[in-house]
Amino acid sequence: MNFVPERMAPLRARRMGIDTHHEPTLYLRAESPVCRSEGFESLSRILASSHGDKCIIASLNIITSDLIADDEVGFSEAAWKRLNIEPDAPVWLSHPRPVQSLSHVRAKVYGHRLSQDQFREIIHDIVSGQYAEVHLAAFITACCDDQLDDEEITSLTRAMVESGSRIDWKLPVVLDKHCVGGLPGNRTTPIVISILTACGVTIPKTSSRAITSPAGTADTMETLTHVSLSLDEMRHVVNSVGGCLAWGGSVRLSPADDLLIQVERALDIDSEGQLIASVLSKKIAAGATHVLIDIPVGPTAKVRSQEAADKLAASFRAVATQLGLEIRILFTDGSQPVGRGIGPALEARDILAVLQNQADSPDDLRDRAAVIAGAMLEMVQDIPAGEGVRIALEQLKSGAAWNKFMAICAAQGGMKSPPLAPYRYALIAHQDGIVTNIDNRKLSKVAKLAGAPADPAAGVEMHVHLGQAVESGTPMLTIHAESVGELNYAVDYLSEHHDIISLAHERREKEKHA
Amino acid sequence: MNFVPERMAPLRARRMGIDTHHEPTLYLRAESPVCRSEGFESLSRILASSHGDKCIIASLNIITSDLIADDEVGFSEAAWKRLNIEPDAPVWLSHPRPVQSLSHVRAKVYGHRLSQDQFREIIHDIVSGQYAEVHLAAFITACCDDQLDDEEITSLTRAMVESGSRIDWKLPVVLDKHCVGGLPGNRTTPIVISILTACGVTIPKTSSRAITSPAGTADTMETLTHVSLSLDEMRHVVNSVGGCLAWGGSVRLSPADDLLIQVERALDIDSEGQLIASVLSKKIAAGATHVLIDIPVGPTAKVRSQEAADKLAASFRAVATQLGLEIRILFTDGSQPVGRGIGPALEARDILAVLQNQADSPDDLRDRAAVIAGAMLEMVQDIPAGEGVRIALEQLKSGAAWNKFMAICAAQGGMKSPPLAPYRYALIAHQDGIVTNIDNRKLSKVAKLAGAPADPAAGVEMHVHLGQAVESGTPMLTIHAESVGELNYAVDYLSEHHDIISLAHERREKEKHA
Repeated sequence: MNFVPERMAPLRARRMGIDTHHEPTLYLRAESPVCRSEGFESLSRILASSHGDKCIIASLNIITSDLIADDEVGFSEAAWKRLNIEPDAPVWLSHPRPVQSLSHVRAKVYGHRLSQDQFREIIHDIVSGQYAEVHLAAFITACCDDQLDDEEITSLTRAMVESGSRIDWKLPVVLDKHCVGGLPGNRTTPIVISILTACGVTIPKTSSRAITSPAGTADTMETLTHVSLSLDEMRHVVNSVGGCLAWGGSVRLSPADDLLIQVERALDIDSEGQLIASVLSKKIAAGATHVLIDIPVGPTAKVRSQEAADKLAASFRAVATQLGLEIRILFTDGSQPVGRGIGPALEARDILAVLQNQADSPDDLRDRAAVIAGAMLEMVQDIPAGEGVRIALEQLKSGAAWNKFMAICAAQGGMKSPPLAPYRYALIAHQDGIVTNIDNRKLSKVAKLAGAPADPAAGVEMHVHLGQAVESGTPMLTIHAESVGELNYAVDYLSEHHDIISLAHERREKEKHA
Repeated sequence: MNFVPERMAPLRARRMGIDTHHEPTLYLRAESPVCRSEGFESLSRILASSHGDKCIIASLNIITSDLIADDEVGFSEAAWKRLNIEPDAPVWLSHPRPVQSLSHVRAKVYGHRLSQDQFREIIHDIVSGQYAEVHLAAFITACCDDQLDDEEITSLTRAMVESGSRIDWKLPVVLDKHCVGGLPGNRTTPIVISILTACGVTIPKTSSRAITSPAGTADTMETLTHVSLSLDEMRHVVNSVGGCLAWGGSVRLSPADDLLIQVERALDIDSEGQLIASVLSKKIAAGATHVLIDIPVGPTAKVRSQEAADKLAASFRAVATQLGLEIRILFTDGSQPVGRGIGPALEARDILAVLQNQADSPDDLRDRAAVIAGAMLEMVQDIPAGEGVRIALEQLKSGAAWNKFMAICAAQGGMKSPPLAPYRYALIAHQDGIVTNIDNRKLSKVAKLAGAPADPAAGVEMHVHLGQAVESGTPMLTIHAESVGELNYAVDYLSEHHDIISLAHERREKEKHA
């Protein structure tokens, strides 16, 4: 993308302090001579180059007021970070060349198969910032509904791995895990890693922040310790205590995935092919050799039927095998939230309760973590099938896992207490009844409206589980928020959606009316 | 969409003078109390309401500098026009409700059929500004590749008509025409309308500006007369001279189409279903009862084979019939540009040459206009098949069409001369040869890089046609531009694409080398 024009005098770079989210944007005065002589006012995308051949493509906004001067070009925060220059540095603008790989996207829109090279060109152009958000949206949409076969998913995954950095832990075996998601509160990873390190398995774990959920493992761990570690710091932690629980974002792993995921979130679309490529590209880039995939199955989880789960698992296996990754798949119950808390700090409290063997710790979270840790142990140690979960529960009971967790937090910079939210609202049952249904998706929505994950203390605390008898006048859940405004939005949503927790009480109601 | 919140104090509206193209955008200071208390900094879309219940949904950009004050909310130009308030007017902000119709878009992404009501909900939400550009991109992509059957296209068309105004000309028959496009210079409409009015047919013609081409009929007519007429002014012109050649944009015809088309242009995608819905919704909204569709067929036209043309024509007929519209379809030669000029003013010159019977007027443009006008005459007058074109040519030859054209321009506010561009560059043939191929798409690209249609005098002037013998040293085309920068971009593109005009000269070359 070496396309530095010579004809034009440079403009002075100005950081505008405008956060345009993920779309880099440049601002140019309509009246400026360069805008007129180059015909920029009709462009929607523009190429900006600095000294040293560095360049970005950005959206162009034309300024008709005096927000900037004629000889300035304004940068949004995303554009400023991408070009990475000093204030007042010279910047040259020009018309961007047509993006050739968009013809591959159009081919996919029209149902054609794409080759390895075509995926490489698409991913290269995405990472180099040549795609506007509408182009990403078209690519994502075109890949939905089984439009990618396993070979294409493999090609896409490989292209995504190649587009970024790749960690080499210098270990023969690197275990990793991923939960396909959709189940609020299902924060097993910190417990699983504590168990595995207690068993002597070296496990350098990098996690992501939430994408569409109220919390990611990195968000939750951040309420307990420091997670923004450099690669060197991670190595140091792993060497000293056998494992880490760090945020993967400080290393540039599968950067195409980060760009695609932002648009998937806006569209609320998460296709099977993109999901597999996203998960496996991040794992391979993070240096994993063995990976366990947890697929919760339930009517309001991400995967809604066993049939869909089987299909997803078959594709996961096929693609992982092509890429030389050992894979094991666990199907788990996805009918209701796990533990009590939904949101970074609330989930951290559940984790502490399980690790510390507190009397009222959530059994379901403990059991899930033990099953997953056990299955992972069986992948790398020569133990009989089913023995793994027993060993895992032992590490929890003996306090060995808790000791390892404290050691990891200490090595990462010290342990801290998760915050508590100042504003709360309890949803009270208005009748006696049995809990017959819990809507995972709507619960997540409540937690997000309350401010999770950006506000770490925000979220939902559950007081009931499926099958539990509830008495009129007792709380079923409590919303936690860090601001009154967010508490109100979450309460509004709750009051409009009466099916978030369903109680069987219709018969009794009828009897009353009779 | 009545959702005016009561909790928050209003902010003062400030017009920022930032042109964000079609995406309305609001600017809010990160440090402002409202941003913090309401948790707005994590939103990408926000709802803004003014006094009187008017509201818009817009993208939200967070300002980290002092571009605006804590009690202000900044508006981009698109947002300012949509909410239509005074500077410093009070504005309330709130979290937007989830857009329910996006679930229909996701259903379409996953290959489900949509009902009339589902299309109505989608189009309603698009017109009321609830879709971000990524949502429009997903909808457009999901409708590609035969994903819409004729019944769905009919539903989409009907929903698009209902979303805007509809002109009632109070005439029993309103003829209209549309060319599917892809053929640069094919500006027959002004000639066709002049012929038809000369034949006594009342024809109130509204045209659009260019979408992806170097000129639309409204752009070309604007170099000859005033085209931004109100509906009353159009009626007055039609009543006094029998026809008009106005821009349709001053009336809100099928406004959903305008929003979809902007994103289709960015994606360079124009699916069959969207194309038919776009064309027919505009025609029905413009009051047409009879419509002729011109489909140029050629290897670099929009429709590339007769098979594709037949399929498109069948869908056009099925949908038009369902909507009670009389339709006639003409397949025309789409192998090369029509006339000499490509670009608003250059095409206007060709039109004048044909209407004035100039000695060197382009025969191909004259003959096409006569064929189309003849076919339209046969739709509404009781004349034998084939007689129409003879009558049409007569109107040109006698000067009757030219007189009508002058009368229309006079009634619309007076006739003017198309401008001439100050900067030009001629592409010279370097060898003798026969023209064997002309690439319509790349020619359009050259004309657009030169500044068309925003710069009315910009574009390409063709000096050769298919089959013509060219001598070394003579010009094959001339680029016209209004700025040096744009001329340079067009010349750069030309110098990188040697296949825009192909000459058969290989044999001769070999002989020379031998």
